[in-house]
Amino acid sequence: MSKIPSDIEIAQNATISHIKEIASKINVTEDDLEYYGKFKAKLPLHLQKENPQGKLILVTAMSPTKYGEGKTTMTIGLTDGLNTIGKKAIAVLREPSLGPVFGLKGGAAGGGFAQVIPMEDINLHFTGDFSAIEKANNLLSAIIDNHLQNPKSSLHLDPKSIAWKRVMDMNDRSLRQIIIGVGGKANGTMREDGFNITPASEVMAILCLSKDLEDLKKRLGNIFVGKSIDGKAIFARDLNVVGAMAVLLKDALKPNLVQTLEGNPAILHGGPFASIAQGTNSVIATKMGLSLGEYVVTEAGFGADLGAEKFFHIKCGQSGLKPDVVVIVATIKAIKYHSGLGEESLNSTDSFAIEKGFCNLEKHIENIQKFGINPVVCINAFPDDTSDEYEKLKALCLSKGVNAIVSTAFADGGKGAAKLAAQVVEAANSLNNNYKPLYKTTDGLEHKIKTIATEIYGAAGVEFSSKSRTQLKMINDLGFNAFSVCMAKTPSSFSDNEKLLGRPTNFSITVREFEIASGAGFIIPLLGDVMRMPGLPSFPNAEKIDIDIDGKISGLS
Amino acid sequence: MSKIPSDIEIAQNATISHIKEIASKINVTEDDLEYYGKFKAKLPLHLQKENPQGKLILVTAMSPTKYGEGKTTMTIGLTDGLNTIGKKAIAVLREPSLGPVFGLKGGAAGGGFAQVIPMEDINLHFTGDFSAIEKANNLLSAIIDNHLQNPKSSLHLDPKSIAWKRVMDMNDRSLRQIIIGVGGKANGTMREDGFNITPASEVMAILCLSKDLEDLKKRLGNIFVGKSIDGKAIFARDLNVVGAMAVLLKDALKPNLVQTLEGNPAILHGGPFASIAQGTNSVIATKMGLSLGEYVVTEAGFGADLGAEKFFHIKCGQSGLKPDVVVIVATIKAIKYHSGLGEESLNSTDSFAIEKGFCNLEKHIENIQKFGINPVVCINAFPDDTSDEYEKLKALCLSKGVNAIVSTAFADGGKGAAKLAAQVVEAANSLNNNYKPLYKTTDGLEHKIKTIATEIYGAAGVEFSSKSRTQLKMINDLGFNAFSVCMAKTPSSFSDNEKLLGRPTNFSITVREFEIASGAGFIIPLLGDVMRMPGLPSFPNAEKIDIDIDGKISGLS
Repeated sequence: MSKIPSDIEIAQNATISHIKEIASKINVTEDDLEYYGKFKAKLPLHLQKENPQGKLILVTAMSPTKYGEGKTTMTIGLTDGLNTIGKKAIAVLREPSLGPVFGLKGGAAGGGFAQVIPMEDINLHFTGDFSAIEKANNLLSAIIDNHLQNPKSSLHLDPKSIAWKRVMDMNDRSLRQIIIGVGGKANGTMREDGFNITPASEVMAILCLSKDLEDLKKRLGNIFVGKSIDGKAIFARDLNVVGAMAVLLKDALKPNLVQTLEGNPAILHGGPFASIAQGTNSVIATKMGLSLGEYVVTEAGFGADLGAEKFFHIKCGQSGLKPDVVVIVATIKAIKYHSGLGEESLNSTDSFAIEKGFCNLEKHIENIQKFGINPVVCINAFPDDTSDEYEKLKALCLSKGVNAIVSTAFADGGKGAAKLAAQVVEAANSLNNNYKPLYKTTDGLEHKIKTIATEIYGAAGVEFSSKSRTQLKMINDLGFNAFSVCMAKTPSSFSDNEKLLGRPTNFSITVREFEIASGAGFIIPLLGDVMRMPGLPSFPNAEKIDIDIDGKISGLS
Repeated sequence: MSKIPSDIEIAQNATISHIKEIASKINVTEDDLEYYGKFKAKLPLHLQKENPQGKLILVTAMSPTKYGEGKTTMTIGLTDGLNTIGKKAIAVLREPSLGPVFGLKGGAAGGGFAQVIPMEDINLHFTGDFSAIEKANNLLSAIIDNHLQNPKSSLHLDPKSIAWKRVMDMNDRSLRQIIIGVGGKANGTMREDGFNITPASEVMAILCLSKDLEDLKKRLGNIFVGKSIDGKAIFARDLNVVGAMAVLLKDALKPNLVQTLEGNPAILHGGPFASIAQGTNSVIATKMGLSLGEYVVTEAGFGADLGAEKFFHIKCGQSGLKPDVVVIVATIKAIKYHSGLGEESLNSTDSFAIEKGFCNLEKHIENIQKFGINPVVCINAFPDDTSDEYEKLKALCLSKGVNAIVSTAFADGGKGAAKLAAQVVEAANSLNNNYKPLYKTTDGLEHKIKTIATEIYGAAGVEFSSKSRTQLKMINDLGFNAFSVCMAKTPSSFSDNEKLLGRPTNFSITVREFEIASGAGFIIPLLGDVMRMPGLPSFPNAEKIDIDIDGKISGLS
């Protein structure tokens, strides 16, 4: 493999088509497009079909490691691969958050020769969706504090009960925990508050689960704000703010069309956190893709224990979508890492480490099979991999009845994923795949949590802290027992202990507390600390970013 | 006058042209436009000419009252009026801030039959410029706090010295004064901070004074951040954040093209506060207008004592722009209000009140004449006005050598401003108008302040608090004595006491303290308390705003 230029160099040297050319490939006319410059456009909601016929391909992954498994890159590569073999495929992805761009990460629009472009715009403000979500979230906050300030307010909101936080799309640790309303009566009621990063806003989760504008408004109204002095639950609808929030979100609700490096259509829309939300793009974007293309390739955050499970039970459960194919991305390095054999095994050909570390991928394979789908494994090729390692891993997958295909999309673009694409097409047309969820909506919340823990994580059982028991009672009393469950667990392990690699057994998980996302329609069992506002590293990526007088940007990656 | 529908009803019933049609009127081709939907577009900077030949018309006003004098409405009306009489005129305006939309104000895109459209988009996120400015401002904040957190930082920034605040485009009093970094070491350094509303960000002032991307970067670098532990001044350039801030602003730097209700071009760009900044749209937008049209009609916030003075000394002083015509907007009600005769005079025909209240307008007329320009007075017609009142006011203006023309643009659109337009064309071609500033850049700061106070406000003198004396010495020591002066004074009076109506005499003003805007290139003498973060009223406009399932918005006005 020859040396590959940086992501931004590849993106800036790419030939980019006017977005109307990309739209015409999926039969969208210029009249239906709302341009944002020449290379981005919003798609109107009426392009969604009631019963879209496209095949839905979910790209998920084994338990993630710090080395990066390249799920987004493989999603884009597979889309280009499907188009390479003559299929009309559309990538449907999340929009990146601005915060990490200035932190460690640089950017998040794929990598190598499997990227979506214009990468600079996508990694910056894009079409303003995140800003709109931020404003809608913070308008609710301002209105909440205004009720505390207004002596005529009939809500009698208890300041200590307020569960709604402000958001900003910035890595800014100093805003995590703050005191607002300092400086006397004119400046509001003094209380503790904090900012989360915008992808962690429930408004983001709501936007991505809404079917249409009407559903969006209903969900916004259902946001749990806090309680009155006499203990009555108060929702956003009680604050008369739903209309104004929806007005702020009217354009953000429309999916965004861009293109891959190879000029294939990509729809980017929404970006809810994978840790405390569903971690996948919007229902509307996915349905739009299925309405406009033969194949939709989409992804969900973290490993399959979180990403795929939430994709199935929350996104599919609430929308009626059904996956046709599941691709699990694995890398040789991640397999070795999960062997627990340490650094040495990572940097040399080590067939034993592959055998030992396979257990992690194996459990993810078994889990997807439980949902009625036999997955395809995509091995994301890295320069140091050897063919012996590939053969070993393929054989192990085959022992589970699963085909594993090496993809070189990072280095080769679509043609590097053509074989994978052919396998995916075969799977999509297989009569053996019949998706079914592991729990029913009508099952109790405790049952849902136990099902996920035992069936997916392989836990022996679930323990509930006394705090979480009390909260669970309150949640049931509020009538939220038909909600989905959105687990907040470390992605690094099947268990709630990030140090347990591979396929841990004989463990139980502990629900410490619950959070309510009653607008999104799920409750969040917290199994550990969840970071909702990242910080910047000592030497942040922002220091490397620049723009020259001709407008050429550097330092995004 | 028949009953006029609400602003949003008029705007929604208007025939709106595709923005490419509007662009073609000023010879801008589709290829040069960056669309934001069908009705908004950004204009590339290369359309600016080095020596544009258009005539520059500044619309300013007498000292504002709570009744509203309709400066923006008259600016748009005059633009339509000029086009009505066959001139190629472009309105160049500020973009409205989102905060007040949810507070008292509703919207800010003109009124009646003199509006810019699409009014909903203009009043909401528009093309994302304010969000970009907010992000650039807050990235600097995050980087500042990250230096406090980083033990390896060589800046040794003194937390108590930090002069830079965060911003949010929201009326949110609870964020005015806050404590950040609460909750221990991992959450940063605990210190006092606060949020200003986005138009009050120095980044906004900078963007609006920048000639180009290079100038923008230089100005961003010059932002004064605070001091090191050993008293050294620290600027944004010392934090290596200028490139990343400029990247965030790359699109916000480009002016936005929209249209008036009559399909004439309007360029909206930037919106710095009038209270602590220059209160007028960007230099780039104004030059762009002068490059593309025969006449540019533009406005500046507050009355002429603040708006016009800052427009001349700051915007023109820094950019080399020269005004050709000045229009002073007056209303019969405001004239009567400045008589100080109270409520009764406002609601009845009262020739004596007009005679007595004229002194306010008279002083503004004299002030503009001092700059070498004989102004035109525009009387914004209201339903209760009588022709006797108009005749009286016209005669008073004529006694100062000034023509006063009644404009019914609010009710009648462009044809209601045709007479005014004819007068403005005459003034633009007059050889008697030769703009000259009242102070030179090389004059000392104290001299500049005194010149404004005595010549414009009519003050007997200027007093400096001991704090401001100390600060002035520091400012001079920093080498900022060639900066412009940006007065922060109540707009309600020529004096620094908002209760002194009309044309006060025998008063002195007091500079309480100074602020430095070294990126914008001005210092701000504070003559009183300046509100940088408004609050919401008890029953905010947000509660009236809604959107129906067809996407039709109500409640903006």
